[in-house]
Amino acid sequence: MHEINELLKSFGISKPSLLLDKNRVLSNIDKMANKAKTAGVRFRPHFKTHQSVEIGNWFRDFGVTAITVSSLDMAMYFAKHGWSDITVAFITNLLEINNINELAGRIKLNLLVDSEQILSILNQQLKYQVGMWIKIDTGYHRTGVSWEDFDTLQSLGEKIRTSPLLDFHGLLTHAGHSYRAKSLDGIRKIHEETVSRMLSAKDYIEDIGIESCEISVGDTPTCSLADDFTGVDEIRPGNFVFYDLMQEKLGSCAENEIAVAVACPVVGKYKDRNQIVIYGGAVHLSNANMLDRNRKQIFGYLTSFQNGTFGPINKNAPVVSLTQEHGIVSVDNELFNEIDVADFVFVFPVHSCLTCNLYKEYHSLQGEIISCL
Amino acid sequence: MHEINELLKSFGISKPSLLLDKNRVLSNIDKMANKAKTAGVRFRPHFKTHQSVEIGNWFRDFGVTAITVSSLDMAMYFAKHGWSDITVAFITNLLEINNINELAGRIKLNLLVDSEQILSILNQQLKYQVGMWIKIDTGYHRTGVSWEDFDTLQSLGEKIRTSPLLDFHGLLTHAGHSYRAKSLDGIRKIHEETVSRMLSAKDYIEDIGIESCEISVGDTPTCSLADDFTGVDEIRPGNFVFYDLMQEKLGSCAENEIAVAVACPVVGKYKDRNQIVIYGGAVHLSNANMLDRNRKQIFGYLTSFQNGTFGPINKNAPVVSLTQEHGIVSVDNELFNEIDVADFVFVFPVHSCLTCNLYKEYHSLQGEIISCL
Repeated sequence: MHEINELLKSFGISKPSLLLDKNRVLSNIDKMANKAKTAGVRFRPHFKTHQSVEIGNWFRDFGVTAITVSSLDMAMYFAKHGWSDITVAFITNLLEINNINELAGRIKLNLLVDSEQILSILNQQLKYQVGMWIKIDTGYHRTGVSWEDFDTLQSLGEKIRTSPLLDFHGLLTHAGHSYRAKSLDGIRKIHEETVSRMLSAKDYIEDIGIESCEISVGDTPTCSLADDFTGVDEIRPGNFVFYDLMQEKLGSCAENEIAVAVACPVVGKYKDRNQIVIYGGAVHLSNANMLDRNRKQIFGYLTSFQNGTFGPINKNAPVVSLTQEHGIVSVDNELFNEIDVADFVFVFPVHSCLTCNLYKEYHSLQGEIISCL
Repeated sequence: MHEINELLKSFGISKPSLLLDKNRVLSNIDKMANKAKTAGVRFRPHFKTHQSVEIGNWFRDFGVTAITVSSLDMAMYFAKHGWSDITVAFITNLLEINNINELAGRIKLNLLVDSEQILSILNQQLKYQVGMWIKIDTGYHRTGVSWEDFDTLQSLGEKIRTSPLLDFHGLLTHAGHSYRAKSLDGIRKIHEETVSRMLSAKDYIEDIGIESCEISVGDTPTCSLADDFTGVDEIRPGNFVFYDLMQEKLGSCAENEIAVAVACPVVGKYKDRNQIVIYGGAVHLSNANMLDRNRKQIFGYLTSFQNGTFGPINKNAPVVSLTQEHGIVSVDNELFNEIDVADFVFVFPVHSCLTCNLYKEYHSLQGEIISCL
């Protein structure tokens, strides 16, 4: 505990704060960039996880020039800071046509579509050229045209090809069902199935005479575990930059690759139930949760501070309950005796994207303050 | 749908936005203020739900001069805007002693304590007088001294009484276990038990010669349903200002008392599964969830816009899944045919406190923009 307290004291931190190990982040980026390079695919990382210009800039050293975001707001933020090739990996929200036109006039903006209705309205209202991807549903069933829906695929392809302001890029999918896989093999199987389904859909598109049809895939579990990207042109993982407990549980990462944790002050100790209460609730961690090895719901695990970085996941110290500002952590006797009120503890998040979204800045373990959207 | 679209167009809204019906808010405040008046208890509403100076000011017309918050940050925000009697209903975070001293020097700041350790350190570091409450655990088991822990209660009481800068106010509890009650009678029973346990604890305190010991209670379910507050000096409900789906399910409110909803653009329609996809995910609604009547997890329900306010809860249109920016809503055939892409829908939140925390402003149905922390 003393090392953590000293560190946070040196940062001037007195309330729940988001910490980041820059070395782990750089190593995570390095590994994924290398994997893309080796596989010969474009690396277009998703920036929705970190939402930070400064962290975005770290990617430039690994040759990244094109990015993915999940909202027009994020696209405008990164465009303002020098990114000029941005895919908004979210079905186009026509209500934001003014922002779309504003951005399309000055950067290479790429949009997603999965219905003729959106395409028609977009065609009427666009003022500048945009890159266009057809969103494909390869089994996740959130958005997208079914990979088997031959008619819709060809009809959308045809409409895009003949629209002067739409530049057909290809087919894009998010195999989010990889998060529901039960094993590493399960995740790899979803990857293979996804690529195979995308290649079938590409055949339909090529049948109508479109010659250049790229394939873009990209969830963190499959991108972390797969090595064979034959047939794929682009990958768009995002979460891998920080990883989290959910990814570690899935097997997408090792525990020493988790790059963010929330520092939380301890405000209470309750011996009769071996619990500590932290200033760190749903507004600091998000209420994302998962099942532990005993199928009990947990909202995070404590970790330690060792050799200048986060220690292992302490599975004997789960966050068992969250309310708006409070977290309840069950601990063993040893840790209970070690921790005092006014100490800080480190909590690894279940889902780092949602946790980081709650903050306006990161404190790196290396002593920097890094702002975000 | 057309009425909703027209309204939001007039507001200039194109992405997920938080809406509020000012009339419902005023009516909710009016009812709770009147209940407190009739019962002869001080009404010290919790401002963590709305976190807005402007909404806070609406309470002044109902005679409110003292408030509750859940963090020092909120206390500083409201103090800056003219509130001079604030209870931070969270066990004192000693790490924020500088902010505590800064505030205690200029307003009547009231703090909570449940351990001698915090009390001792506070005693050493405080520079100005603060009001002091002992936090009591009456069965929720989050924080607090057990209502039966005679020794600790008397020892804390004695230490507070003899500290020159600590002004003993009394005993304070949050019966958060009312949220787990299975029926209206269950909630009322928790209220009776809570008050009875607080009165026992008060007896222990009076036994050591402390004559003025107030009792403060205050979760929204019990404050909404109970009428008898005999023995209680102060109530601190917060959520009642907006209510939400969870409160309606518990029976604390009627559906026409829910005062906030999130407006979300529709981006996709999927006929094979009778689902629509909205731009409205965990970062817009929070991933708070509850079980529907079939014990399935839901993250919100659609409502309509009728006669200038929100319509009934549409239990045939649940938000069945949320990811970072996407929400999936299952709808019946009729609604499916009625809704188009680029329409807006209104989503009632499961837990309004967590949803509102994600926004920097409210749009009132009456056309105002109301900022918040």
